[in-house]
Amino acid sequence: MFQNFEVLSSPDQAAGRLTRLRERFAASGVDAVAVPRSDEYLGEYVPDCAERLTWLTGFTGSAGLVLVLADQAHLFVDGRYAAQVRAQTDGQVFTYEDLIATPLAAFIEASDHSGLKLGIDPWTWPSSEVTRLEAALKVLGGSLVFLDHNPVDEIWEDRPQPPLGTVTLQPIEYAGKLAREKLAMIADNARDAGADAVILADPSSVAWSFNIRGQDLPSTPHPLSRAIIPATGRPLLFIDKRKTGIEAEAYLTQLADLEPPSDFDDALKELGRNGGTVLVDPSVAPHAVSMLIGQSGGTVLSAADPARIPRAVKNSAEIAGSASVHRQDGAAMVRFLAWLDDQQPGSVDEIAAASRLEEFRRTTGQAMQMPLKALSFDTISGAGPNAAIMHYRVNTKTNRRVNAGEMLLVDSGGQYVAGTTDITRTIAVGDVPQEQKRFFTLVLKGMISISCLRFPEATRGLDIDAFARISLWKAGVDFAHGTGHGVGSYLSVHEGPQTISRRGMQQLLPGMILSNEPGYYRDGAFGIRIENLVTVHEPRDIDGGDKPMLGFETLTLCPIDKRLILTDLLDTAEIEWLNAYHARVRGELAPLLAGDPALAWLEAATGAL
Amino acid sequence: MFQNFEVLSSPDQAAGRLTRLRERFAASGVDAVAVPRSDEYLGEYVPDCAERLTWLTGFTGSAGLVLVLADQAHLFVDGRYAAQVRAQTDGQVFTYEDLIATPLAAFIEASDHSGLKLGIDPWTWPSSEVTRLEAALKVLGGSLVFLDHNPVDEIWEDRPQPPLGTVTLQPIEYAGKLAREKLAMIADNARDAGADAVILADPSSVAWSFNIRGQDLPSTPHPLSRAIIPATGRPLLFIDKRKTGIEAEAYLTQLADLEPPSDFDDALKELGRNGGTVLVDPSVAPHAVSMLIGQSGGTVLSAADPARIPRAVKNSAEIAGSASVHRQDGAAMVRFLAWLDDQQPGSVDEIAAASRLEEFRRTTGQAMQMPLKALSFDTISGAGPNAAIMHYRVNTKTNRRVNAGEMLLVDSGGQYVAGTTDITRTIAVGDVPQEQKRFFTLVLKGMISISCLRFPEATRGLDIDAFARISLWKAGVDFAHGTGHGVGSYLSVHEGPQTISRRGMQQLLPGMILSNEPGYYRDGAFGIRIENLVTVHEPRDIDGGDKPMLGFETLTLCPIDKRLILTDLLDTAEIEWLNAYHARVRGELAPLLAGDPALAWLEAATGAL
Repeated sequence: MFQNFEVLSSPDQAAGRLTRLRERFAASGVDAVAVPRSDEYLGEYVPDCAERLTWLTGFTGSAGLVLVLADQAHLFVDGRYAAQVRAQTDGQVFTYEDLIATPLAAFIEASDHSGLKLGIDPWTWPSSEVTRLEAALKVLGGSLVFLDHNPVDEIWEDRPQPPLGTVTLQPIEYAGKLAREKLAMIADNARDAGADAVILADPSSVAWSFNIRGQDLPSTPHPLSRAIIPATGRPLLFIDKRKTGIEAEAYLTQLADLEPPSDFDDALKELGRNGGTVLVDPSVAPHAVSMLIGQSGGTVLSAADPARIPRAVKNSAEIAGSASVHRQDGAAMVRFLAWLDDQQPGSVDEIAAASRLEEFRRTTGQAMQMPLKALSFDTISGAGPNAAIMHYRVNTKTNRRVNAGEMLLVDSGGQYVAGTTDITRTIAVGDVPQEQKRFFTLVLKGMISISCLRFPEATRGLDIDAFARISLWKAGVDFAHGTGHGVGSYLSVHEGPQTISRRGMQQLLPGMILSNEPGYYRDGAFGIRIENLVTVHEPRDIDGGDKPMLGFETLTLCPIDKRLILTDLLDTAEIEWLNAYHARVRGELAPLLAGDPALAWLEAATGAL
Repeated sequence: MFQNFEVLSSPDQAAGRLTRLRERFAASGVDAVAVPRSDEYLGEYVPDCAERLTWLTGFTGSAGLVLVLADQAHLFVDGRYAAQVRAQTDGQVFTYEDLIATPLAAFIEASDHSGLKLGIDPWTWPSSEVTRLEAALKVLGGSLVFLDHNPVDEIWEDRPQPPLGTVTLQPIEYAGKLAREKLAMIADNARDAGADAVILADPSSVAWSFNIRGQDLPSTPHPLSRAIIPATGRPLLFIDKRKTGIEAEAYLTQLADLEPPSDFDDALKELGRNGGTVLVDPSVAPHAVSMLIGQSGGTVLSAADPARIPRAVKNSAEIAGSASVHRQDGAAMVRFLAWLDDQQPGSVDEIAAASRLEEFRRTTGQAMQMPLKALSFDTISGAGPNAAIMHYRVNTKTNRRVNAGEMLLVDSGGQYVAGTTDITRTIAVGDVPQEQKRFFTLVLKGMISISCLRFPEATRGLDIDAFARISLWKAGVDFAHGTGHGVGSYLSVHEGPQTISRRGMQQLLPGMILSNEPGYYRDGAFGIRIENLVTVHEPRDIDGGDKPMLGFETLTLCPIDKRLILTDLLDTAEIEWLNAYHARVRGELAPLLAGDPALAWLEAATGAL
């Protein structure tokens, strides 16, 4: 099993650890330190050796930070973790703050800690955040102190070693473009921008550029690594050679000089000493990167990571790979859904559901010679009221049976060499109340609306987000997350810059893969989400029109639970879309399920409305 | 008649005038000057004395600028004026540039005029634009020279005098809030922002704050004036006393010290000399304002004009006033449409249509004791292919008959003391081709979609703009303007910051008035636009929902031409909306048309589909 369902928090250790942290304040010349959940790679996942916030506080959520003062400690989390943080940490030791309503900078600015000297590790904060903190401290007559060493690492005696996941080569049949060409494109970009070099600080950009993948993190298959791509000359790749093995090393040394990660600092300083102009993306690079370049005499050019857009715009090999794994993943989902329907209502719990689904993904992958490499993220398996918790992660304490008359929300995905999947289905167990069916149907209308859109070039994610919501808005409800996020090609399941949301300023370009996942959540009662992945297609001419239009093609192949649909609420075009989608699902998945009892289930589940 | 249809341009004068302008370059220490269409008030309309661009070049469009170099002159206009500028100006004298694709700053930066000294009048440019010009000139090793006098005024010998339109008081029954309270609110705002004073540089903000109106401009009833509102103490109102008369002067001196406009410079310098911090909106204030304050020792605090949002959010008196003038304006429109239908196809031309419509507005206003004070803008009256020109202004040269089988697009509005109207109807003359009816119906679907929206608090204009477009997008077409703009209360018909468009970052707040005007334009063939004004209503609970939702209420009352609708393309909800709208139009307008032959026309035009 990739996923485990243990309760990982140990709140009882926090008081002692905070004491030891504070004992070092004087030596470091600080009155306080701030420790974020992020590590030196600023990614969504951190390896065990960098779970500093969890080690210090007990909190295991995916976002948050702690401000440790001499006599107080404030733990900042967002709304979705408000209950969890209180369950996982010691209320005698921490006070709790809202990360969104009162971000750290605002909290500091409004506090009475005049003259505060706040220590941070500049490797674990992006420059954008550092700028805000500096401004806030200035108001108090205080200052930010950049610590030479991470303050938690100094007291964390049995800290795990950094991961050494094996690096693999991403085959050209799935990558679609040679690393050599990608690196040349980035070097060209540097030249065009007037820079002498580009820092690839985001490990996903390194993985994409060099066509490599890794196993350092549970769900995101990039190796923790960084690179410097000069405008002319050989790139430097900072990666632990114990990860690469003979084959990968031989491949990589054709493309770049391989350097140990510990030499990255020196390389930045050398760029600076040479008076270089260096392109750095301030939203993905740790502040230390710009600091080291600037302090040693270089010039930092703030600009978007040049790998970001080409990584987001998938080429035809990547699209074909994604389509292929979506067939396989759909077959696994159908096996799971057929199994679930076969169980007695009230007999399956959330962990059993998540475990069986992982098992189906694994066996289907084995059978199809495209093995499940990892889950895209810990499966969200929420029954009844637990489904209303938007980022619910089931564990042995919260585990709950799906009773008759309830819905089970399962949001899951697989990492395969050919691509990354992410799918949510909400499933009826027994006879679900009419009101819940009504909301399910309204959510479905939003999902279909996005699926059927046509839009002109230059349309951004925020221009279309509301189409997923309007049926809900008319019913007086909404959902508090974006409609869709970008998805990588056997890379992060949450990939920027493309999104369909209020903040989606990025134009939607042909080849981008996004999720389409409206939902509705009624606190303490039920939760609904329906999610397909889609890809943006090229502009197409439309009869009688004068402007070719882009649109989406659906990648995800899996029935949507017809038992939850109130057909009266759908219009003809919506019914036609659903019937055509189900016919396609049946057509594409049936051959993969030949001889499997799930085939009969598929036939029934995909019959026309 | 408010509107005239004369051809106003005199292209033959340009060469001589440019020569005289250039003769003064040396004395001013410049190599070039740039003259924009904007005047010292940076508004949409300029008085005759400030039509500097027209006087210098012959071009009469509402946006543009000329860059006059020693041996060349580049005239910048946007796409809608590409043809017009060539017809109105001398191609031997000017080269033409695209104002949007290559704005002046970009044009300069890409040019080979190294070391260029460019002169501008800092009263006719906002600071935001000056910053861009300075950056561009820096690239060339050049500089921006702020001229002491407007370079055109120095050579314009018979320049008209500034307008002296009479100032009137806006009655409290229409303003809804006392000027005293508005001014106190602005002073509070200054204090809260840490400013000693606020500059009201936008005459609409002055008019709104002091509850006065003016007649300096053809269509926007604000007096050209400015004000300084101190955080404590008496405001200063800079206005020519010849405009005010005894009643207005007595009223205004209760609220403020009245100063001549020529003393505004000195007042800004005094604020600076006193070391004051002054709130200035860089998007509505001339650059000279910040310059004078800064040069004399003051600090400029850049922030939004504090009158902008309260002016945009109409109070109940303003909404009631608007509703009332929309009934009257609707009655005038119905008389016009009934008259038009009574004419032989092919017998009415664009000027005749615009003239008759103005006449109906005038007589209806007289009958209802709410006289037409001005047109909200020059009526756009476009027949057949002329309707495809988005900002068409008919004149005696372009005037065209509406032939049988064509559509007439009429976009017009009236300024009344109780409110401002803006309405577009596209009308069939004879038997219009099926294809045009199809596009009319698709435009109508977009208009109805906006009318029926529900949306949560914090929704911005850009979140909903695409609902007006999706039916067109699905047919492979789009329209190249925003869906809607803000509208003032007996003030500018184009009022910010509220808009429904790609750039609409402003949240839609209850009380805002906006237009809802999708369209479709086929070059050289036909043009369609349907426009109603709407107001944002308070959040309302919806049965079964958990979040109250805002929405729009329609203000405009006038039939939509059913002869152009393909009913098959409308869904049930759309037909219901249209029938309910028409029933309401009939119910509200019929009493105003008692005894008028137009009543029978109204009855027929508003019958259910």
